[in-house]
Amino acid sequence: MHLPPKLVGVLGGMGPAATVDFMQQVICSTTASCDQDHVPLLIFSDPTIPDRSRAIIDAMAPSPVRMLCDHAARLEEAGATALVIPCNTAHHFYEQIAGSVTIPVLHIVDAVCQELDCFPGLSERDVAIMATAGTLRSRFYEERLARAGYRLMVPTDEEQAVVNEVIRLIKAGEIAAARVQVLTVVRDLKARGAGVVILGCTELPLIRDVIGELISYIDSTDALAKACLQYVRSS
Amino acid sequence: MHLPPKLVGVLGGMGPAATVDFMQQVICSTTASCDQDHVPLLIFSDPTIPDRSRAIIDAMAPSPVRMLCDHAARLEEAGATALVIPCNTAHHFYEQIAGSVTIPVLHIVDAVCQELDCFPGLSERDVAIMATAGTLRSRFYEERLARAGYRLMVPTDEEQAVVNEVIRLIKAGEIAAARVQVLTVVRDLKARGAGVVILGCTELPLIRDVIGELISYIDSTDALAKACLQYVRSS
Repeated sequence: MHLPPKLVGVLGGMGPAATVDFMQQVICSTTASCDQDHVPLLIFSDPTIPDRSRAIIDAMAPSPVRMLCDHAARLEEAGATALVIPCNTAHHFYEQIAGSVTIPVLHIVDAVCQELDCFPGLSERDVAIMATAGTLRSRFYEERLARAGYRLMVPTDEEQAVVNEVIRLIKAGEIAAARVQVLTVVRDLKARGAGVVILGCTELPLIRDVIGELISYIDSTDALAKACLQYVRSS
Repeated sequence: MHLPPKLVGVLGGMGPAATVDFMQQVICSTTASCDQDHVPLLIFSDPTIPDRSRAIIDAMAPSPVRMLCDHAARLEEAGATALVIPCNTAHHFYEQIAGSVTIPVLHIVDAVCQELDCFPGLSERDVAIMATAGTLRSRFYEERLARAGYRLMVPTDEEQAVVNEVIRLIKAGEIAAARVQVLTVVRDLKARGAGVVILGCTELPLIRDVIGELISYIDSTDALAKACLQYVRSS
């Protein structure tokens, strides 16, 4: 068989544009002068996986766990030597996914922490987050960041209602409307003292340009892409 | 197991940006209001597959055939029910790839022919092509198009030298330089009577905007994306 020694499997499609954006970030972060300088990826992009945020908030909603674990195992079986999940909310199910494979699963919040550690002049109270309601309810960002010495500023209920709508608009392909709406939340977070905002949903980097005009941000997609390359390049 | 009834496998990475562009075209061509409306894809993006064009032109160069066939079989094994290859030049090895699996492999030139058939006011002599030297040497475009009743205008040696350079620049990420260089070829083809040009290398659609300002084009990546959706939606 002709498999690369390190092959990152991508548990994707949540949503599909976020997975494409992740692949694009891997390409952009690679120094390459020809095809062969780039890293191989094995991607299962399955947008039919049930909504992660809804499953966290509503116990009666369909659960994505069986499909997530099935696809993870399938990627390992097909030759993946590590996994990444370019969907923050799906990390609520991290333990179950990691438990369904024997290969390492790189955690997106660890990748974000690595970026925070490199961020200049960051005081504790300055880190805000925009994420799905499910991700915030799950509290895995707060817990992993607390362990790394950071404290999160989470959106108010009013701010979160707008974030939810922005994410819905991006998933529906209504990018222009999303770009307008996100500005109000970013302004509010900034007014409350945020110096940097984590784009803690992989849909949000799809409008990173307009967010970047108002505030410094940590891009969870980009952070995961860098962690992926770090894994491949490590001996 | 939780596999979709129709799962297109993508034999990709040739180059990686062309595969990402293909996925993007699939997303854009889908009518969707949420993640779950999109189609699943299983992608092996392996940029380390040896250069296809070089293998066609130079019998001493490393052959991509074993990796192409291995990866195709791996995608079928992992659950793919049909394959696409978002790389025109790799279609020189179509028979070997199709022979290594039991599932259908959608041919990119058939997808292009479907688009040509819908093109308004097209006379035979009007169809030009830009592709790798390997694709042109292989003549599979000429042969499949002739069967469909079309005759190709191929670039002169001087024009082809520029096309080769444009493709190399795109693969190296030097998009701005590629955009400038491609204009001279497009102008020449147009002066020789081309009314439409086939972008017969999946790198070329990465600069489709600038080409489209000068001439009508058939985008092989977009054509393959549409054929992929047609397969998934057919009963």
